Amino acid sequence: MAWVRSICIAHLFLFVLSVAALWPQPRVLVHGASTVWISPSLQLSFVNRTSASSSLWATGNGIQQLLGSLLRRQSGRKRDAAPDDIVAAFERAKGLIFNHGFVPRIFHPKNITFEPDNNENRQNITTLTITLSKLEHIISKEQDLIPSDEAYLLDISESGHASITAATSRGAIYGLDTFAQLFYAHSQSASESYLSIAPIHIVDSPAFEHRGINLDISRNWLAPQDVFRVLDAMAHCKLNKLHLHASDAQSWPLDVPALPELAAKGAYDPSQIWSPQDLRQVQRHGHLRGIEVYLEIDIPGHTTSVAASQPELITSAYREPWITYAAEPPAGQLALDSPDVMAFLDTLFNDLLPRNAEASSHFHFGGDEVNTHVYGLGSDSSLTKDKIRALVQKVMDHVFTIAAKHQQTPIVWEELLLEWNLTLPQTTIIQTWRSNEALGHVLDRGHRVLFGASTHWYLDCGHGAWFDPANPSDPGPDPRASPPYMDQCAPYKNWRTIYSYNPLDGLSPEQRRLVAGGEVHMWNEMTDAVTLDGMLWPRAAAAAEVLWTGGGTPVSEDTTRRLAEFRERLLLEGIAAGMVQMEWCLRNKGGCLI
Amino acid sequence: MAWVRSICIAHLFLFVLSVAALWPQPRVLVHGASTVWISPSLQLSFVNRTSASSSLWATGNGIQQLLGSLLRRQSGRKRDAAPDDIVAAFERAKGLIFNHGFVPRIFHPKNITFEPDNNENRQNITTLTITLSKLEHIISKEQDLIPSDEAYLLDISESGHASITAATSRGAIYGLDTFAQLFYAHSQSASESYLSIAPIHIVDSPAFEHRGINLDISRNWLAPQDVFRVLDAMAHCKLNKLHLHASDAQSWPLDVPALPELAAKGAYDPSQIWSPQDLRQVQRHGHLRGIEVYLEIDIPGHTTSVAASQPELITSAYREPWITYAAEPPAGQLALDSPDVMAFLDTLFNDLLPRNAEASSHFHFGGDEVNTHVYGLGSDSSLTKDKIRALVQKVMDHVFTIAAKHQQTPIVWEELLLEWNLTLPQTTIIQTWRSNEALGHVLDRGHRVLFGASTHWYLDCGHGAWFDPANPSDPGPDPRASPPYMDQCAPYKNWRTIYSYNPLDGLSPEQRRLVAGGEVHMWNEMTDAVTLDGMLWPRAAAAAEVLWTGGGTPVSEDTTRRLAEFRERLLLEGIAAGMVQMEWCLRNKGGCLI
Repeated sequence: MAWVRSICIAHLFLFVLSVAALWPQPRVLVHGASTVWISPSLQLSFVNRTSASSSLWATGNGIQQLLGSLLRRQSGRKRDAAPDDIVAAFERAKGLIFNHGFVPRIFHPKNITFEPDNNENRQNITTLTITLSKLEHIISKEQDLIPSDEAYLLDISESGHASITAATSRGAIYGLDTFAQLFYAHSQSASESYLSIAPIHIVDSPAFEHRGINLDISRNWLAPQDVFRVLDAMAHCKLNKLHLHASDAQSWPLDVPALPELAAKGAYDPSQIWSPQDLRQVQRHGHLRGIEVYLEIDIPGHTTSVAASQPELITSAYREPWITYAAEPPAGQLALDSPDVMAFLDTLFNDLLPRNAEASSHFHFGGDEVNTHVYGLGSDSSLTKDKIRALVQKVMDHVFTIAAKHQQTPIVWEELLLEWNLTLPQTTIIQTWRSNEALGHVLDRGHRVLFGASTHWYLDCGHGAWFDPANPSDPGPDPRASPPYMDQCAPYKNWRTIYSYNPLDGLSPEQRRLVAGGEVHMWNEMTDAVTLDGMLWPRAAAAAEVLWTGGGTPVSEDTTRRLAEFRERLLLEGIAAGMVQMEWCLRNKGGCLI
Repeated sequence: MAWVRSICIAHLFLFVLSVAALWPQPRVLVHGASTVWISPSLQLSFVNRTSASSSLWATGNGIQQLLGSLLRRQSGRKRDAAPDDIVAAFERAKGLIFNHGFVPRIFHPKNITFEPDNNENRQNITTLTITLSKLEHIISKEQDLIPSDEAYLLDISESGHASITAATSRGAIYGLDTFAQLFYAHSQSASESYLSIAPIHIVDSPAFEHRGINLDISRNWLAPQDVFRVLDAMAHCKLNKLHLHASDAQSWPLDVPALPELAAKGAYDPSQIWSPQDLRQVQRHGHLRGIEVYLEIDIPGHTTSVAASQPELITSAYREPWITYAAEPPAGQLALDSPDVMAFLDTLFNDLLPRNAEASSHFHFGGDEVNTHVYGLGSDSSLTKDKIRALVQKVMDHVFTIAAKHQQTPIVWEELLLEWNLTLPQTTIIQTWRSNEALGHVLDRGHRVLFGASTHWYLDCGHGAWFDPANPSDPGPDPRASPPYMDQCAPYKNWRTIYSYNPLDGLSPEQRRLVAGGEVHMWNEMTDAVTLDGMLWPRAAAAAEVLWTGGGTPVSEDTTRRLAEFRERLLLEGIAAGMVQMEWCLRNKGGCLI
């Protein structure tokens, strides 16, 4: 790194960081003020330090590809190919740079020239070199960063030499997304793009290994195509886990070939089913973007939709008044003492877990909001809370055994540990949600933990209760049935609230090491494919920067401006993200301070 | 009406109203349970009772049109043509019925047959007769409805005889929209649609004559094309006034040919200007849908964008700290004591008012949030509040004279009357916004009034403050600069809150007669073209039903289901309306009561 060090000392103008509007903010960013251009003929040169060979990939140009292929044959030399996920990420980066044509006009006053001279002597980037190599010593030498296989280095010289170095494909993919965010289209140039902050030196590595979105595809259906769009945007802010909340009381959209009636009868409609092929395509779409897609099948509560095909498995299905038997309609839970339930879980998870394992080492078994009243009648009438606890323990032990067989790390909601005091395999990751205090309680029990308190990271809150008043003219005491019809987790969590969430507040350094990361939650009782983009973005991106950098940074105008640029890039990709800031404030820097 | 009366008594099944999912709810609706079909060859027969002639319009079929034309020539008889706005509304109604293909699947349980037999003996509607005729005696005889030129009657018999009777084109246009909402596409029929509640008898008339949306096109720009979409949706819920808040401190998007620099320098960007032609197209788009489009030029505050072209007209332009000088940045108001300002207002309004008058008899002169601190320095330093008041009175008197010259009724915000105690022409309509109590205070002063309190009808609230903290690590006492970064009018006004707003509460019958109506407000500091649809709809439709029916009806499941159908129809038209209710609740009627 002697080269970089000399630049740092001798040649760099240290601009304010907002000049480089990257999202999430890299951990280390040093840059200058020179312009470098890039054209669509950009080539990828891939170097694998392990095998000490390199491969020049001519991309985006059929003739060059043909020539390259011929040359390789003529020379008789065999070269290593870049892995398919790196090639795909490189092509995506080119698409973002050249096809979207992002001219950052709204970030400058109207009559200010903000673009470099289009006719000046140009320094051009012609090749991007991506090297896979061990990085640990470099990162730990440079900064106090946690070694991670997601880390990358990115360097662009004033003369146009560009390189990304990473330990894994995943790090390289993140580096490519950062690379794409550095460039702007020029209003006077149809194809060429530029950056104005060369030389650039970035050392980047995430604060948390688990950076996720919990996406509900059951309350209202989301199509695989909708989830592709979620994954596209996630990749740009370096989120790496998509938790699909794939079943709930209201519908069962996931086809399980071993139990074909489950989705056939449990889905809202035949058109609202995810086939195994759909799931595989979503997993693949995530994999190519460095994102693990993993499933949640929520048990023993949130299972009423199973009753559509196998009513004998569900106790108190559709029982009224639902408010006694469930957090929301319809009521119904697995019949815990039924041997049929155990057989059902065997069949279900022995089908699903191997397919989940193709993309992820995690599987979520739910465990939230288990209701004891459902077991108060009929064949279950003798069940006390202690007996219910023993039965829940038995059911969960059973599915954990299946998880172990398929090398899956279980994740469960906090209640199983904190409310039911279950004994859980020590590897189980506990997902907290009810408060941030839950984090400390879980850590005291020695489990790894995910944060994402409903007070800060619930994206569904604040748009009002969705229940229908049973007696409109005399609605009774429940505030959700009367004006102003507020929902339970109001107010709406605006992006600044999400950004200001500091989950590690008050934890000791030892405790922090057990924090795997966190997830922002998109429960979709009142979100569907039409509104999804605006409900998720830019807010999930605000969470993504907390997850990547570790959080604890107060919101500033720089945060706003970087996130607003991120939003513009999402819009150009066809993702209908919500607003970050009024145009006047973006054009007039410093004009909207309070 | 003897025919209708006999049906009412002898043949009708009185179903629950939710079977006819109309939005807004008609004032009188009586219907049966028979199925009637309709095909795209539907013809319009227009009868004008005034001239006692009728005209058969062959529509959607070029050959029929040609034949009709030939027949008319051969017979030598001259027939009246239907007015162009009725023809346009008829064609739109056919488009809604036949092109959108709305199959109301999600409103029924999965395995229930909800559609009529596709092969049964059919009764078909082949012609829709629209008659223009005086209606007052019919309406007042039928029900205790206020006579209105927007009223209409709609009748469909079991044998397929369909008619709309109205006093004006506008009434006929509303009747046509109601007509379109009656039909569903059939999943087994590519083109034919049906209704299942014949015979139908509707008598409909609005509770308020002014039913509007206040749409800000200045804080963030909206294109004319975006406003077309707003007008399309407004027409479906019988809103009849689009108030364009066409200029503000942040930008001046409206081209005024007499003052070409105003928009050239005051707009955000050359691409963000409404030409006179754009305005005319928006006015025309509204006219064809029974909607008056009228402009607001907000004076003397909210005028900073004028300083971009004529800085001498604006006092304290861009002055900091803005929080002393304006409700939001940037500060600046008209220099009240400047003769240049009077000349500017002459030129401005003598250009704009005649063009506004082509579409509306109303013009809005603003008058809100006049700040006295801006006049505290420089040439204005001697201005006391009393002197400012006199100057504001003089400026407003001046523009009211111009308004009178162009036969425009002025509208102003409540402050000019309630805070500044200005003397206003008695015809001036006062638009209240700060509280519903303001309504009574205005009525006590004998002015007509518009409601739309920020507590209930501000669509922008609840998504968080948009200011950037000036000192993030020590943000000071303003709550908008610290977590949770709440905006001043939080919480978000959900559709049920909007629907539950009863502006007439506590007013005497005499006072009620002076209430012209109301407007729901879409201030767009944090709304742009991308998010507009979801911010407006379905919430503005909830306001529309209050404005049409008079409000005071508590939200019930029927309200939810009708509004959810309205949303589905908007989606099919390409308007990305927000959610009304979770699919499970719609499929399982009575399942989500609380």
